[in-house]
Amino acid sequence: MAHALRLSRRGLGNVWPNPAVGCVLLRDGRIVGRGWTQPGGRPHAERMALDQAGPLARGATAYVTLEPCAHHGRTPPCAQALIDAGIARVVSAMTDPDPRVSGRGHTMLRQAGIAVEEVLMEADARNIQAGFLSRALRGRPFLTLKLATSFDGRIATAGGESQWITGPQARLHVHAMRAQHDAIMVGGGTARADMPSLNVRDLRTPRQPVRIVVSSRALPDLPPEGPDHGPLWQVSGDPGQIMVDLADRGVTRVFCEGGGGLAASLLRAGLVDQIIGYTAGLVIGGDGRAATGPLDLQYLAQAPRFALAETCPIGPDLFHRWRRAD
Amino acid sequence: MAHALRLSRRGLGNVWPNPAVGCVLLRDGRIVGRGWTQPGGRPHAERMALDQAGPLARGATAYVTLEPCAHHGRTPPCAQALIDAGIARVVSAMTDPDPRVSGRGHTMLRQAGIAVEEVLMEADARNIQAGFLSRALRGRPFLTLKLATSFDGRIATAGGESQWITGPQARLHVHAMRAQHDAIMVGGGTARADMPSLNVRDLRTPRQPVRIVVSSRALPDLPPEGPDHGPLWQVSGDPGQIMVDLADRGVTRVFCEGGGGLAASLLRAGLVDQIIGYTAGLVIGGDGRAATGPLDLQYLAQAPRFALAETCPIGPDLFHRWRRAD
Repeated sequence: MAHALRLSRRGLGNVWPNPAVGCVLLRDGRIVGRGWTQPGGRPHAERMALDQAGPLARGATAYVTLEPCAHHGRTPPCAQALIDAGIARVVSAMTDPDPRVSGRGHTMLRQAGIAVEEVLMEADARNIQAGFLSRALRGRPFLTLKLATSFDGRIATAGGESQWITGPQARLHVHAMRAQHDAIMVGGGTARADMPSLNVRDLRTPRQPVRIVVSSRALPDLPPEGPDHGPLWQVSGDPGQIMVDLADRGVTRVFCEGGGGLAASLLRAGLVDQIIGYTAGLVIGGDGRAATGPLDLQYLAQAPRFALAETCPIGPDLFHRWRRAD
Repeated sequence: MAHALRLSRRGLGNVWPNPAVGCVLLRDGRIVGRGWTQPGGRPHAERMALDQAGPLARGATAYVTLEPCAHHGRTPPCAQALIDAGIARVVSAMTDPDPRVSGRGHTMLRQAGIAVEEVLMEADARNIQAGFLSRALRGRPFLTLKLATSFDGRIATAGGESQWITGPQARLHVHAMRAQHDAIMVGGGTARADMPSLNVRDLRTPRQPVRIVVSSRALPDLPPEGPDHGPLWQVSGDPGQIMVDLADRGVTRVFCEGGGGLAASLLRAGLVDQIIGYTAGLVIGGDGRAATGPLDLQYLAQAPRFALAETCPIGPDLFHRWRRAD
């Protein structure tokens, strides 16, 4: 299952609105098929693994990171495909919260005489599925806010210079993070001031993320959609409604890169699920530009709180990731 | 030598203006004596180790983290004590930069027929001796600036609430840091607003650090010097001159805990050798109080730069230590 979970990560950012699933077929202690949700969401992980295994799938155990689908969508149901291939046993990391599935995949398998074991490594599976689960259960995408700042939390000097606070290794890491998200989001001020390219560079990716600019005003000429740039969506209005609309359009994972005004409005609305910091070893001072706009907090108890999930040095900078704590 | 270096750390904060030295005596593969500079600076590490070993010191090898002293200060020279005890061999981590010693300790030992080996683990020894070396070579103490902030670099809400941003584990860690410094320094604003106790609590320490308040105005009634509080020194004026004066008074290691104005003036003057961050997982927003005052930087190239030396989670918070990079 650990191997299947690693495979599932390959789909992150490339398979929305579908979940990123991994599948490993094991027969007599040998892996006979490996699959993960393919870019665009098809083929599904199970289909890929079964195609790889061919006749060797008969009698094998399938490890899947999400309950196999039971409904006819754009593809025939995976539960049926596992049955047809003669799979003997299915180990599943978690139940699919999609009301069209939600236990029916497991039931269909059992009715066909397949042994089904739930639930293995569910916490890890749910972590990887955070975007898919957020859209399915909360009707909004999982939102990560990234801040790359000086030691004292600044994103630019008083004079406005901001390139580069962090080093090239941290910037490459940001591109890897972008590649794992369905969409990159910035505020209108950032779009106008920095003309950011908002794409994945220096890394191969099967799909460029959607570019979302939150602004009610006219945008500057950003590059058109193409092989190097995802679709450009301009949105505005209430942050909560924006998130609902993005979920309706299929987006499951959003990576917000500022600016400070947008960051503050998302934090105030309680929409930020994860914060990522890249802290550089320089001090800019209190007259530098703050990473977040005002939150109008009177008391510390009102501040949004996050729990440290991961930290490591990246090049000369410090990377730290925190998950919403409440 | 690694063991001697660990012993030497025990003296940090308690032995100024003396260096914190460690000494291990090894005979036939057995440790026969261990010593470290005692609170107040005497006895020296070598004296303590020799007293512990007694007659077993004859023929032993002495590992010392600093060249043994050769001059008569308040104690007879340690080089002579090693000779008198019949030590056969001395391994020394580094030469003493004090002009009264500076190679003469090693020479005295050699002239007495003792084999002397220099230099072992010098980088580690110099790190531990950073305060002593700074005072001896630069005429000012080694200065550490501590900032305990929210994820976005704030030390209080707009309403002024600041207790507590970091957790109890980080606060205990701060007390351990205080115990390893000769003096704790804050600005007058912090002294007036927070009435900080500026002492070591919840940890045993043989000596409370000096309390330094940088202010030309009258101070509030802070606790008098006693078992729980070190001497209170009020200083003011040019930050560089303050540091020279502190070195003249014997101080080798200063731990500055803000506020933002003092932090900025020390950074602007290039006096900060090390910065320590405790980052908490909450976001206060751009209207919160900044950790440092204005630095008047136009370009990023002017910003003081630091290199990451150490990082780890402490309770729910993130600890990170950076050393001056230029």
